[in-house]
Amino acid sequence: MNSSDYSSLWLCYREIRSTSEKVAVMAADSEESPAKTAFDELKLALSSLFKGIKFSTGEKDCSYLIKLSVSSDLREEEYSLICERDSALISGGSGRGLLYGVFSYIRKTILAGGFPICREQINPANPLRMLNHWDNPDGSIERGYSGQSFYFENKKIISNKRTEMFARAVSSVGINGIVINNVNVGADAGRLITSDYYESLNELSAIFERYGIKLYLSINFASPMDIGGLPTADPLDEGVKNWWKTECKSLFSSVGNLGGFLVKADSEGRAGPFTYGRTHADGANMLAAAVKPFGAVLIWRCFVYNCKQDWRDRKTDRARAAFDNFSPLDGKFSDNVILQVKNGPMDFQVREPVSPLFGAMKNTNLMLEVQAAQEYTGQQRHVCCLLPMFREILDMHICPSENDGKVSDIISRGGKNCGIAAVSNTGDDCNWTGSVFAAANLYGFGRMAFEKDISPEKIIDEWCVLTFGNDKKVIDTVSYILLNSYKAYENYTAPLGMGWLCTPQNHYGPSPLGYEYDRWGTYHFADRNAVGVDRSDKGTGFASLYNEPLSEMYNSPETTPDELKLFFHRLPYDYVLASGKTLIQHIYDSHFEGYEAAEEFSEMWKKLEGMVDEDVYINGVRRFEMQLESARDWRDIINSFFYRLSGIPDEKGRKIY
Amino acid sequence: MNSSDYSSLWLCYREIRSTSEKVAVMAADSEESPAKTAFDELKLALSSLFKGIKFSTGEKDCSYLIKLSVSSDLREEEYSLICERDSALISGGSGRGLLYGVFSYIRKTILAGGFPICREQINPANPLRMLNHWDNPDGSIERGYSGQSFYFENKKIISNKRTEMFARAVSSVGINGIVINNVNVGADAGRLITSDYYESLNELSAIFERYGIKLYLSINFASPMDIGGLPTADPLDEGVKNWWKTECKSLFSSVGNLGGFLVKADSEGRAGPFTYGRTHADGANMLAAAVKPFGAVLIWRCFVYNCKQDWRDRKTDRARAAFDNFSPLDGKFSDNVILQVKNGPMDFQVREPVSPLFGAMKNTNLMLEVQAAQEYTGQQRHVCCLLPMFREILDMHICPSENDGKVSDIISRGGKNCGIAAVSNTGDDCNWTGSVFAAANLYGFGRMAFEKDISPEKIIDEWCVLTFGNDKKVIDTVSYILLNSYKAYENYTAPLGMGWLCTPQNHYGPSPLGYEYDRWGTYHFADRNAVGVDRSDKGTGFASLYNEPLSEMYNSPETTPDELKLFFHRLPYDYVLASGKTLIQHIYDSHFEGYEAAEEFSEMWKKLEGMVDEDVYINGVRRFEMQLESARDWRDIINSFFYRLSGIPDEKGRKIY
Repeated sequence: MNSSDYSSLWLCYREIRSTSEKVAVMAADSEESPAKTAFDELKLALSSLFKGIKFSTGEKDCSYLIKLSVSSDLREEEYSLICERDSALISGGSGRGLLYGVFSYIRKTILAGGFPICREQINPANPLRMLNHWDNPDGSIERGYSGQSFYFENKKIISNKRTEMFARAVSSVGINGIVINNVNVGADAGRLITSDYYESLNELSAIFERYGIKLYLSINFASPMDIGGLPTADPLDEGVKNWWKTECKSLFSSVGNLGGFLVKADSEGRAGPFTYGRTHADGANMLAAAVKPFGAVLIWRCFVYNCKQDWRDRKTDRARAAFDNFSPLDGKFSDNVILQVKNGPMDFQVREPVSPLFGAMKNTNLMLEVQAAQEYTGQQRHVCCLLPMFREILDMHICPSENDGKVSDIISRGGKNCGIAAVSNTGDDCNWTGSVFAAANLYGFGRMAFEKDISPEKIIDEWCVLTFGNDKKVIDTVSYILLNSYKAYENYTAPLGMGWLCTPQNHYGPSPLGYEYDRWGTYHFADRNAVGVDRSDKGTGFASLYNEPLSEMYNSPETTPDELKLFFHRLPYDYVLASGKTLIQHIYDSHFEGYEAAEEFSEMWKKLEGMVDEDVYINGVRRFEMQLESARDWRDIINSFFYRLSGIPDEKGRKIY
Repeated sequence: MNSSDYSSLWLCYREIRSTSEKVAVMAADSEESPAKTAFDELKLALSSLFKGIKFSTGEKDCSYLIKLSVSSDLREEEYSLICERDSALISGGSGRGLLYGVFSYIRKTILAGGFPICREQINPANPLRMLNHWDNPDGSIERGYSGQSFYFENKKIISNKRTEMFARAVSSVGINGIVINNVNVGADAGRLITSDYYESLNELSAIFERYGIKLYLSINFASPMDIGGLPTADPLDEGVKNWWKTECKSLFSSVGNLGGFLVKADSEGRAGPFTYGRTHADGANMLAAAVKPFGAVLIWRCFVYNCKQDWRDRKTDRARAAFDNFSPLDGKFSDNVILQVKNGPMDFQVREPVSPLFGAMKNTNLMLEVQAAQEYTGQQRHVCCLLPMFREILDMHICPSENDGKVSDIISRGGKNCGIAAVSNTGDDCNWTGSVFAAANLYGFGRMAFEKDISPEKIIDEWCVLTFGNDKKVIDTVSYILLNSYKAYENYTAPLGMGWLCTPQNHYGPSPLGYEYDRWGTYHFADRNAVGVDRSDKGTGFASLYNEPLSEMYNSPETTPDELKLFFHRLPYDYVLASGKTLIQHIYDSHFEGYEAAEEFSEMWKKLEGMVDEDVYINGVRRFEMQLESARDWRDIINSFFYRLSGIPDEKGRKIY
């Protein structure tokens, strides 16, 4: 992909009107690089939005005055807008705060169709708002659905205009940290921390810095052996500790604007402290000590489970694994360690309960990990707006006895060392996300990470206008599609909280037994009478890992919400759900309805021909073709599978094979 | 793999005794290169078998006289042995016939443990006895389980001592034709017919020629476009015809000992005459005309079916495809066209009925294609001696109303343009076939192709002695394992003629729904009540494609042999088989018994420690470890799948999950 061939996403700045007005933009009195960026971005936006606009040098001869300032009255990343009829004061607690204020101001201008009149003061909901790219030095992207990496090519790091565009885009929604390489760190990526890469890391890091973004690297726990030549990677070994200290000292003193490391250890074949009989606290604290002198953090993933389970073993429950591995370690981690916990206890399935770890780690810095990359959610061929799911997760009252017991509270509780991360859905495709619709997930993740309690509806409205312009029919159509897309996708892929009905390896399309007789701990045990996993106290006891009254609620089929029924319980096909439907009829209905919704989306989109850019239109048409083909497979294969098992016909007599 | 690192297979020539005898070996009066080879091979063998042996130059001063001769009394590839106490006369109808006679004489010497006394006159059962290698120019082998190609590396053809060893080995069992490249001809392999390869083809071909083997190439039907730059590959287009004529003239006049081409057309994405609205006769005859001036043949595969079937379509039956495509063309092919028909109507499944095409093509040259490569039969990790299966196929009386109506008769009916081919199971592993046991399939295929009505038992006895020496316990053990291995493998992988229970793509291990909802025409339609495909006249009508009384036999579940019950019929789980067992109990029993047999083989093999070469022993131990792990999966997954579906418990109460 040509590095100059990319869209401007939601920063495309369509003209609002032409004008001959003179506008004064007064820069902030700050040497911080993001403060300068804020000034440049504002003028760039105004020049595009108001064709012909002139910038006056003084306050006096202008019709509209915009003042930028960095103010110690605000917290570091906080901003405030005071926008009157003929002036705007944009303040930030730092250059970064100011930059977020400017991007907010630009957004409001576009949404208002002119200079906005408003007051707003916002401190980001989460201290760390991160993207995790699963990009590899060879340019491939694990679970990437939008082309190749724009960070790496042939083991070299790329820094160019495209990289800058990406930094602008994600900074505009408040992202302040980016892990550029895959959590699965292979031999090549293991060398990213060596002097081979100092120069090119610095180039990239400098671009990020202008946009208030810190650079992070995924590291390999076994590096002392793999690149250091030591005989061990034991975290309590003095040689290992010293190796990491020396490496970090050299790295952090050579590469600026580095925020820290992300580690996947003892997980799916990666090395980790278990090899040496050490705990994850031992492992994480050792690395945290090495980066601490540089003000950096150590982010440690909790995605640890037995990936070589024997499917015959009905006692082991993968859903318990992260909890069982990490909850005993609460309070044992250093203050610059952050545990990064996936939203659910399994692995980014379409529907999972929130991980009970969020309710258990009272004395540990936590970071929520969600996936913007649509690995299990349609791979950016199916439209699947994840914002309603993200909102539900953040709003989940996981500590019901506490006032601030929502997930969103818990991940901001640790002060500055906590927050939220998304696996990025980007690549070097011209439109960045493969599907035009998938950009809403990237935009929305940032907005949701930044602005407390913001609704999916509000985010989608913003994104639609910023992306497509102000045509009401376009906005209404796209909003409708996006807001209903997750439910539609859930309907035809994950009935009642069942996961893992997808094809192994590529995770695309249905394969009802694909994960049933394998080593991944992912079973539904469907037989001719019943389906689902008993995770109540009569089964694996997973439900009891939650705080009361959640524990009690999940422990009984009657009180478990329908959408999680089969996650927590094993039930016969004629079990009557809260909805009044039988379990089997729900499976049939949801699959037919989900497919019909996808058909409806496709028809609605086709009516926008000529109303959105031709390439955007075609992108949508092609993606819907892929979605419908796949959704039809999902509908027919899953329905046939359960019909052949249960022998119970569809009440409505629809075609099942 | 080092090209000098290979075993001598069944030509390892262990010493029989040391001797100071003088033996006269009188060369045949023939300039044919295989006649010279025969002389050299005989002396090489005698020198190894009888340490200290001296060769006298004249008849008079020797104690044993061996005379080689080429005699016009014999047919071209026929040989005769007249072996007395103090002399042997080995005659052939040509240099090749003589070579086969010499190899037979050597074999008899080893089996007799000294100079044999016998008379034998054998004309090969099949004119063409071929190996098809699925090797690619990059060195990979499609469905190869024994390392990389020894013909190709980095798009270059290899000719070395290893190649010669291979030619010796397969010539010793009568192979007279080898297709060196994959039937799926990619861009690189398409160029094998161009002048780029004349020189290296000639080198290889010269080695083959010394051993009486003709070289064949797989070609790409679309070559006129892909390498000729023509706008079409239409077989009736004059430009296309001329292009092939010109290419062939150049190729055959530049490369010696070339037997012809093999073509996979209109199959699994390969180009073919259908693209142009032409028949397969049009396609094959056009190519046959191009090679005819050079005495060459055109071998055309009948593996043509719709590989993009919608699984929802219950009317299309892949089993019918080859018959429906080719039987209307009987009598329409040129005399140097040979249709190559896979043994079964599907694709090398563990158990299939013989293809009905063998009973229908009365006026067409046919070649039987079997697979020595263990694609669906355990991938050379499971021991699975295919010779009983090959024997059954050859002995199948597919035209019951005719005296010479066996498959073995039919494939020798066309005079010199007919025969039998096996997909080779070889690669550059030191022992050639990955598993030491798999070499028996290569040896046995050749022996069976050559010697009419030879039994698997006899072949295995030969191979064991030639390979392992004369220890009775070793021979008895290995013979037992080999002779029972196919049934054991069938028991735990393919109950009652069900195929396609394996994992898609790699075809290894169980995946009971892996091929059920896909595009390959491979379904068992298992539901809670019944399983199998109705191919009777109430179903797809496939049974009626056979000649009477086979057609009637296969049309009814009662008369269909148990081992093909579910290939031809859809039956409830409580259906009572001819064996007296219910269908479901047969599934359980055969899976437990198959696994137990594999365990028994493994235990028996372990008792040979110290009695066979260490590397051979270890090879067997490792393979059995892999087999048992996989066989356990097969047993438990298939049993669980059918138990969960049927709900019928095992009568014997064994563990099912």
